[in-house]
Amino acid sequence: MSSPLRIGIAGLGTVGASTVRLLGVHAAALEARCGRPLRVTAVSARDRNRDRGIDVSGCIWFDDPVALARSESCDVFVELVGGDEGPARAAVEAAIASGKHVVTANKALLAKHGAALAAAAEAKGVGLFFEASVAGGIPIVKTLRESLSGNAVTRVAGILNGTCNYILSRMELEGLTFADCLADAQKLGYAEADPTFDVGGFDTAHKLAVLTSLAFGTEIDAEAIHVEGISSIDPLDLKMADELGYRIKLLGVAERTATGIEQRVHPTMVAKTSAIAQVMGVTNAVNVRADAVGELTLVGPGAGGDATASSVLSDLADVARGLRVPPFGRPAGALQRAERAPMQRHEGGYYVRLTVLDRPGAAASIATRMAERAISLESIVQRRAPGRTPDAAGRSGGPVPVVLITYATTESAIRAALDAVMADGHIAEPPQLIRIERP
Amino acid sequence: MSSPLRIGIAGLGTVGASTVRLLGVHAAALEARCGRPLRVTAVSARDRNRDRGIDVSGCIWFDDPVALARSESCDVFVELVGGDEGPARAAVEAAIASGKHVVTANKALLAKHGAALAAAAEAKGVGLFFEASVAGGIPIVKTLRESLSGNAVTRVAGILNGTCNYILSRMELEGLTFADCLADAQKLGYAEADPTFDVGGFDTAHKLAVLTSLAFGTEIDAEAIHVEGISSIDPLDLKMADELGYRIKLLGVAERTATGIEQRVHPTMVAKTSAIAQVMGVTNAVNVRADAVGELTLVGPGAGGDATASSVLSDLADVARGLRVPPFGRPAGALQRAERAPMQRHEGGYYVRLTVLDRPGAAASIATRMAERAISLESIVQRRAPGRTPDAAGRSGGPVPVVLITYATTESAIRAALDAVMADGHIAEPPQLIRIERP
Repeated sequence: MSSPLRIGIAGLGTVGASTVRLLGVHAAALEARCGRPLRVTAVSARDRNRDRGIDVSGCIWFDDPVALARSESCDVFVELVGGDEGPARAAVEAAIASGKHVVTANKALLAKHGAALAAAAEAKGVGLFFEASVAGGIPIVKTLRESLSGNAVTRVAGILNGTCNYILSRMELEGLTFADCLADAQKLGYAEADPTFDVGGFDTAHKLAVLTSLAFGTEIDAEAIHVEGISSIDPLDLKMADELGYRIKLLGVAERTATGIEQRVHPTMVAKTSAIAQVMGVTNAVNVRADAVGELTLVGPGAGGDATASSVLSDLADVARGLRVPPFGRPAGALQRAERAPMQRHEGGYYVRLTVLDRPGAAASIATRMAERAISLESIVQRRAPGRTPDAAGRSGGPVPVVLITYATTESAIRAALDAVMADGHIAEPPQLIRIERP
Repeated sequence: MSSPLRIGIAGLGTVGASTVRLLGVHAAALEARCGRPLRVTAVSARDRNRDRGIDVSGCIWFDDPVALARSESCDVFVELVGGDEGPARAAVEAAIASGKHVVTANKALLAKHGAALAAAAEAKGVGLFFEASVAGGIPIVKTLRESLSGNAVTRVAGILNGTCNYILSRMELEGLTFADCLADAQKLGYAEADPTFDVGGFDTAHKLAVLTSLAFGTEIDAEAIHVEGISSIDPLDLKMADELGYRIKLLGVAERTATGIEQRVHPTMVAKTSAIAQVMGVTNAVNVRADAVGELTLVGPGAGGDATASSVLSDLADVARGLRVPPFGRPAGALQRAERAPMQRHEGGYYVRLTVLDRPGAAASIATRMAERAISLESIVQRRAPGRTPDAAGRSGGPVPVVLITYATTESAIRAALDAVMADGHIAEPPQLIRIERP
């Protein structure tokens, strides 16, 4: 029998505790699958006395994750500490420097230092695995890194943040406001006390940065990502989306375009009939388009202790089997520096919701300004302002919502057209603009 | 630089030609990903002079796949010949015996000889890979074999045959009969001249046998699979399903039950809101339930040259990287002989369509016979016989369809109840019975 794989785990929160528990529950199966036992030999966490429902009494305890990473107590270091600097970064660097394989769930660390860590791991001949860093239990990292080895990926897009999808799903199904749903999500533990990281789109951006590198063989370039969150979404937008055959999802999209790699995170109108539109609540989904396979969609839990631990164990099993694969699918030196496709040159359809002052000339202004930029309109929907009695001419006097769906145009054209409409003075509020993804 | 991986391919049909072409197109990327070049060095096919749109002039040509498998011309043998005996089996056995890794897309061969081939490959220390054998381009084999290593799978279910899903989708969307759709599918090349293998459920059963072994760590047991095809599905069943909130899909389902592993292939009512119900046309989908990850669904192309070749290339990349993993996830000797759960003990809801003679006593007979077996009814829908003028009592005289949806019961109970209803003499035709899968 081969020697056991000795595992050191730093961070015993929800995912860490699930990892320890599942390694115990499935010890025999893992040994059969990997040809050697997988054993937790060392752990590190802040509070030694907290009851986590797991038995780590046989493990060496380290108060400092960096000390664990440097020690001789394990062959693979599992980083579940979190944060893009501080102890997480120091511990991962120390583990690599001391010749240990690393398994991490830390997308923030990867988005910032992934390229350097991959190069360091390669130089030391150790593995760097991070299935758990993106989309919880969905095996999208392995799929892009290994299963699609014989493909050129053209686009990867996903619902990568369960909190945002939960909020948008409830807003749609129950007609609630963003603020009400966020408060509920916080009560239920689906959203943090400071929700900016999730609802602002930044968590999705970190995950997208990792997927982009895996999909296109490019250096991680998180700073190139255009990021918009979901806080501006109004129940009226969801209602109009529904009427027009769409749902609104916060998507992370990376796409190879004529001008380079486009990376963007923003609320998106997706056709109700598309696979990704069916994904509700805290579930995640990733859709990949590639030349050989065509289209592939993976749907599963985006968070949760056991689901995320499932991905950690997948990586540990790969380490135990001796899998040797570059962290981002290609050697760090072979990763390309991607040409950034500027957002102004993004092409696609747009949903535009204008709050129009109900007086002569408004419709003409909108139609003219769009026509000047050669923007064609697929649909126009105008609603009477709610709760107002129209005058003899049928006008309510107050602002009314007007929704436009455009055919494909460019970001710069639609922005210029809307600036001109605003300058004409018929619009009461800044326009709402939501990009449409066509299948 | 490491030595090239020398690839021998037997079978240059659609998938074989795509494999050769994609190995050429993506040669540089594959070399970067795998750390060594992947080169086709030998091929075998029936007709040497056919134009396949690929250049194999630099390859050694073998008329006999077994001779290729035995030769020194390659390190890995790709079997795309097909068939569960004959040259495919002989060639795979010869390749293993001569110390070559094997990549195959042949589910029929695996369903019949998978266990013996896995044991032989293990004994010789070579790999046996078959991602392309199930669900075309969907990486379900790797997902079950590697990504879910830290899970106990409880159920795997999928739409595994594109032909059947295409036929059922068109029947539903266009109200066509099975015979008309089949004829169209044959014209479009989606169905074989002899369609029995697809529409009878046997192709799905072969694929399910492979998935069951991977999911549960059991020996392949294709003979244990209960198989029903789709030829009995009537447009009326699809219409009633739609009214009741269901779609009909041909599913392969393997499930761990109290009495053992249940393996079954049959038309199935799935809730319209479920992920699997959204899968239309020739697309395939596999849903896995497991203790750690919860639920995972993979959707993608179930057939096609390039999509299937994508899976072949995934396996070749694994071979090139030196991946060592038992073919069915665990050593052949560690695979359990599964207890077979008899179909009579299957538990679930049922859709029953009866063709009832419209006269007194019929409803009482149905209600009584169901009650005698403690079967509770969730819905009953009765329609007037089409095209008949009712008499003064409102009866049309002719047979009328009555549809029942039952709550969970057993296969033996519903069969006994329907036998008793038949014996009562109120039923004009044998009943239609379709199982319901609840999420």
